Amino acid sequence: MASVSTLMRPMKEGDGHYSYNRNSLLQREGVEIAKVLIKDAIAGRLDLEQVIPSSSPSRAFTIADLGCSCGPNATIAVQNIIECVKHKHQSYSLNQGSLEFQVFFNDLPSNDFNTLFKSLPLDSQYWASGVPGSFLGRLFPKASLHFVHASYALHFVSIIPKELVDENSPAYNKGRISYNKSQKEAVEAYSAQYRRDMEAFLSSRAEELVAGGLMALLIPCLPDGVPPAKCSSFATIDLLEASLFDMAELGLVSEAKVDSFNMTKYHPTQWELEALVKENGCFNIERIEAIVRPGDGLEKISDINMVILHLRAIWEGLIKQHFGDDIVDELFHRWSQKIAESSLLLRQVEYKHVTELFFLLKRNMA
Amino acid sequence: MASVSTLMRPMKEGDGHYSYNRNSLLQREGVEIAKVLIKDAIAGRLDLEQVIPSSSPSRAFTIADLGCSCGPNATIAVQNIIECVKHKHQSYSLNQGSLEFQVFFNDLPSNDFNTLFKSLPLDSQYWASGVPGSFLGRLFPKASLHFVHASYALHFVSIIPKELVDENSPAYNKGRISYNKSQKEAVEAYSAQYRRDMEAFLSSRAEELVAGGLMALLIPCLPDGVPPAKCSSFATIDLLEASLFDMAELGLVSEAKVDSFNMTKYHPTQWELEALVKENGCFNIERIEAIVRPGDGLEKISDINMVILHLRAIWEGLIKQHFGDDIVDELFHRWSQKIAESSLLLRQVEYKHVTELFFLLKRNMA
Repeated sequence: MASVSTLMRPMKEGDGHYSYNRNSLLQREGVEIAKVLIKDAIAGRLDLEQVIPSSSPSRAFTIADLGCSCGPNATIAVQNIIECVKHKHQSYSLNQGSLEFQVFFNDLPSNDFNTLFKSLPLDSQYWASGVPGSFLGRLFPKASLHFVHASYALHFVSIIPKELVDENSPAYNKGRISYNKSQKEAVEAYSAQYRRDMEAFLSSRAEELVAGGLMALLIPCLPDGVPPAKCSSFATIDLLEASLFDMAELGLVSEAKVDSFNMTKYHPTQWELEALVKENGCFNIERIEAIVRPGDGLEKISDINMVILHLRAIWEGLIKQHFGDDIVDELFHRWSQKIAESSLLLRQVEYKHVTELFFLLKRNMA
Repeated sequence: MASVSTLMRPMKEGDGHYSYNRNSLLQREGVEIAKVLIKDAIAGRLDLEQVIPSSSPSRAFTIADLGCSCGPNATIAVQNIIECVKHKHQSYSLNQGSLEFQVFFNDLPSNDFNTLFKSLPLDSQYWASGVPGSFLGRLFPKASLHFVHASYALHFVSIIPKELVDENSPAYNKGRISYNKSQKEAVEAYSAQYRRDMEAFLSSRAEELVAGGLMALLIPCLPDGVPPAKCSSFATIDLLEASLFDMAELGLVSEAKVDSFNMTKYHPTQWELEALVKENGCFNIERIEAIVRPGDGLEKISDINMVILHLRAIWEGLIKQHFGDDIVDELFHRWSQKIAESSLLLRQVEYKHVTELFFLLKRNMA
């Protein structure tokens, strides 16, 4: 029943040099840090008797990891959730019988589920399955989930609004590949699309989660009061943009092709997300917390090769879809050089890094 | 939680010339013919109020297709089950609210789920997921399934018992690659393994199916009173065996390697299966029916190319695992030639074809 928007792209498949599987260490660190927040959430905010009443014939606690990709990060988060729920269940003195766990790993149908399935631990303590489809629509039966988790999956728009590529629109995004430094009509087109996407996401989950069910979201957001132009995440995209226009000048790609290209990256603010959740009305916000990385974080890492592999695992799919396969190696080489020359990785004063926010939502009574 | 036996091999992946996806038309015809039997089963043997009581908070009917492979056959069977259940549900005058459908497509973790997921209809009327794991073990939470379907998945043994490759055992299967024409100890080793596999299969499903839940199995069986040596399915395997020993004589493969190779194919008899179900004790046998193909059936088709593609889609994985990649093309070429020369496809008097039996089982009260 999934309807998939054409611009949503899964992460780079397989287990090769450029794969997301091998180049998602930064995301993994974030997931690891969020473990303690999830532990707190389950200990303090999950009412097991509410979500699986003793009277229920089913003793299965169901977890969905949305936008799981094909790498190992998904199983880390899920394993933590299960351990915390088990611990809580054991602490109940009620004789409820043992719990079973059913886990749904979701991503787009074009995601590399084969690699994901081969990486699942053989001794896992849950019944695993993969669910192909866009999480902007429904994926599960009504009131069938107890816990939803999504990390690094909600800072994209699903499609580029058509006014951004319409020469006659005030939102026409000529000369830009993101909404950074664009005119306000273009920025608004992006944020309106993000609003539509998040509303679709929240409405779908509201149907699927039982009352009292929890949703833990980890989303890279714009820091409070920082415009995109001062955010290192967009400064990095600016260098991709410059690389593309360099290539256009050399005739390696047409300028019109570059002008019609727009990245799907979108970093909401905390306030924007809070407003969207309140507007939707089906969830209580239980907690919002910024993830603090111990050492250097996203875009702070100094190894340029690691940076470009990280970026390639995320963006190669979208770039190939728009420009074809031919320019990919050259483009990532140029982008890599520009990042190195810019000393962007060192200019910590000039740019702020995205704030990775942990949102804990609880499905209120329907 | 799946433990996968090493000799179980999924069908040929992808959508290429040799893929199961393109070369499973014979199985598809069988599935199509079984549709009417499933329709009867749901109309006459499924008590919807028993499996999803009106008092249950969940309105999701869950279906598992076990050993689904990557081709289109799985969705045909599932779509039929859903239409029949919907029809039955609508005929109830009770105001029960609408039903939702959740479908689990299962196969081994090495199955090509990517191809399967891409082939799922976008407008399907069910929530789809893929479940990687061996169906000889548990795959789902207790009492979480309402209908189980498995076609052409239960005529294999999961491992070759070690006595078949033990020179010192009376069951040592030297000179043979199947149990056809083998000494009785070898035949017994095969059937004991099949018994263990089926008992594991039935015990797992007994836990997963709700009381009153149905299981429809389509299994190629030995016809009543026909020994393997008179079955065209084994006559075909004999020609593979001859091809392998020809290649051993020419030094293209070692004789020891051929001697240690045993096919996993096993055709039970109707009586053997009935006894296994009764011994297990958790299911009532509701119906047993032979599938009757309208024209030429399995191994009766006269196009040699189609035959060898059909066989290659099934057996290439096992052969590669034992012999490596190098001999595969040559071996299938020789096998194909032998089948053509043997006029096996025409000798309908000498050999009997397997009987494709439809078994309808119902989970009795636990």
